[in-house]
Amino acid sequence: MQYKILENNRIASKGYAMLGKDAKFTPFEFSRHAIGDNDILIKILYAGICHSDIHTARSEWGEATYPCVPGHEIAGEVIAVGKNVSKFKVGDYAGVGCMVNSCGECDTCKRSQEQFCENGKTIFTYNSCDVFHGNENTYGGYSNNIVVSEKFAICVPKNAPMHKVAPLLCAGITTYSPLKFSKIKEGSSVAIAGFGGLGMMAVKYAVKMGAKVSVFARNENKKADALAMGVSSFYTSCDKNAVKERFDLIISTIPTPYNPAIYLDLLKFGGEMAIVGLPPVEDKVNIGINELVHKAGKKVYGSLIGGIAETQEMLDFSLKHEIYPETELITPQEIDKAYENLTSGKAKFRYVIDMTKE
Amino acid sequence: MQYKILENNRIASKGYAMLGKDAKFTPFEFSRHAIGDNDILIKILYAGICHSDIHTARSEWGEATYPCVPGHEIAGEVIAVGKNVSKFKVGDYAGVGCMVNSCGECDTCKRSQEQFCENGKTIFTYNSCDVFHGNENTYGGYSNNIVVSEKFAICVPKNAPMHKVAPLLCAGITTYSPLKFSKIKEGSSVAIAGFGGLGMMAVKYAVKMGAKVSVFARNENKKADALAMGVSSFYTSCDKNAVKERFDLIISTIPTPYNPAIYLDLLKFGGEMAIVGLPPVEDKVNIGINELVHKAGKKVYGSLIGGIAETQEMLDFSLKHEIYPETELITPQEIDKAYENLTSGKAKFRYVIDMTKE
Repeated sequence: MQYKILENNRIASKGYAMLGKDAKFTPFEFSRHAIGDNDILIKILYAGICHSDIHTARSEWGEATYPCVPGHEIAGEVIAVGKNVSKFKVGDYAGVGCMVNSCGECDTCKRSQEQFCENGKTIFTYNSCDVFHGNENTYGGYSNNIVVSEKFAICVPKNAPMHKVAPLLCAGITTYSPLKFSKIKEGSSVAIAGFGGLGMMAVKYAVKMGAKVSVFARNENKKADALAMGVSSFYTSCDKNAVKERFDLIISTIPTPYNPAIYLDLLKFGGEMAIVGLPPVEDKVNIGINELVHKAGKKVYGSLIGGIAETQEMLDFSLKHEIYPETELITPQEIDKAYENLTSGKAKFRYVIDMTKE
Repeated sequence: MQYKILENNRIASKGYAMLGKDAKFTPFEFSRHAIGDNDILIKILYAGICHSDIHTARSEWGEATYPCVPGHEIAGEVIAVGKNVSKFKVGDYAGVGCMVNSCGECDTCKRSQEQFCENGKTIFTYNSCDVFHGNENTYGGYSNNIVVSEKFAICVPKNAPMHKVAPLLCAGITTYSPLKFSKIKEGSSVAIAGFGGLGMMAVKYAVKMGAKVSVFARNENKKADALAMGVSSFYTSCDKNAVKERFDLIISTIPTPYNPAIYLDLLKFGGEMAIVGLPPVEDKVNIGINELVHKAGKKVYGSLIGGIAETQEMLDFSLKHEIYPETELITPQEIDKAYENLTSGKAKFRYVIDMTKE
């Protein structure tokens, strides 16, 4: 038996939690809700560290519930299944991203945009009130297991590189989704603004979809990396006179203050700008509606992860085309250090925690 | 001969000008450039008064060039044609909107989006530097005639109600264009925010295109008017809990400060918000990109008048379906009074100047 059952059929779990917004991570023992008829229990092998883990755990996006066990980039092995489960059997590989449940009944859920459940019942993987299980706080992937409805688990083939699969569940879907939403195809002209972890994933997907891809970055440090990925133009200026190309889609992954309206000048008439990067709220990054009118016919929208069906599609596409983030494996003991590196900008690749280590 | 030729074949013209930003309108004699081979001379019958005339003439949108003869809602009769003109003959009716020329060579001009000429050569009907004619300042429709390239003149059938046609050239195309850009059709769900002159036109077009149309207004004063136009719901609140409908398109014609992001909650996933109303720039009406991300999958764009081909399409559609603004005819002597009424909010209908009167 790879897991321990507690009172009320709850599942024993061990993870790493922050106990307050300025705390360090400490080992934390807790329990998961019982394996329902439609649930699976996953032994977590790898958990990616997303920058939003840091914002949440440090209460930078509103007061977190402590103990806080972050982690929504989860890859592991199915070690138990409820009696109605049909998508998985014990021994299969599975992934879990940012959500673990939703109402399933509203139009938006039915169209598999569960992150926008109209009844407000999207349950996020951690730091979320689980209305389907007695309003208990959800605990994420920095732990040894997770119980989740099979509908919210992604099928992963047995030959997949699991440490690379984990970060796809957030960074992958976040960048894949706007490319599909804006109907990017062979010959489309796409620019990616901001060339960090998200930007690199966006570039890889766009190139594989057959688009002509350009990058806007702050400096030329990563120009060689970009060109090696198939990028056709690498710009360190977004001045409309310096940049002659006009794009069908610009995806902004920029997480720091900037003027989004500048990019409108670089769109074709009818082109679209997708925002996936989130600068700090207090910097009030915005677009004036007068600018929208004077740069008319350019559409701006935000994109927030993606639905479950699209996450499965993204994963299949990624595995088929071997599109993965650059990752660096760490042990749970190194989470605090990884947070420091991410905050100070020293992190080069996506940190992935090997949850089989102590 | 209905016109007088001056030195260098220039055309004598008489109009009404503001000589400074706080001035009253005074009679003003000037000349138009010669009738080129591709130009027509129009005897102006009617000129609509657009709120942007006031902003421009009063230097509220940047310092105007004085004397300033506004007017970009022009309907009249062709009284002379250049030798290469094929669209018009003497005696035909014609309309002129916000533009009188553009480069004609860039991609945007070729796609008949001349208002966004990539070479910056869109020549607006008044208060614009005409690079095709020695950089002279353009004078608008508050005058007895205008010389314009036939490409920028709209064909109007002889049986058209010309005083109603004039305002279509700006108010009509401004509201028709976003409905087409967002591909509104039979069964689409459309809301119009702001129910003034532009809002009413938008409602009329949307209803005729077969959409289910709702209105957001500040109060119930015009509810009966809206229902008579075929509006299905009239809201004085845009709270997402009070308003159960979700829309494919919301067109905001609101010219005063408001929070555009509130309307994103009322869009379907994949729905669009078109901004055509321009609140004063100093009010900094804007949309935060964090709000765009958290209300993801909703597209926002600005719309600015429309191209020449679409303006002709709009006029044909309007005449076919008898869609006209409510208008009030005035004489040139009454322009100052009309401006006062428009500024104080007392104006009920679109003012149209009968330019055949002195």
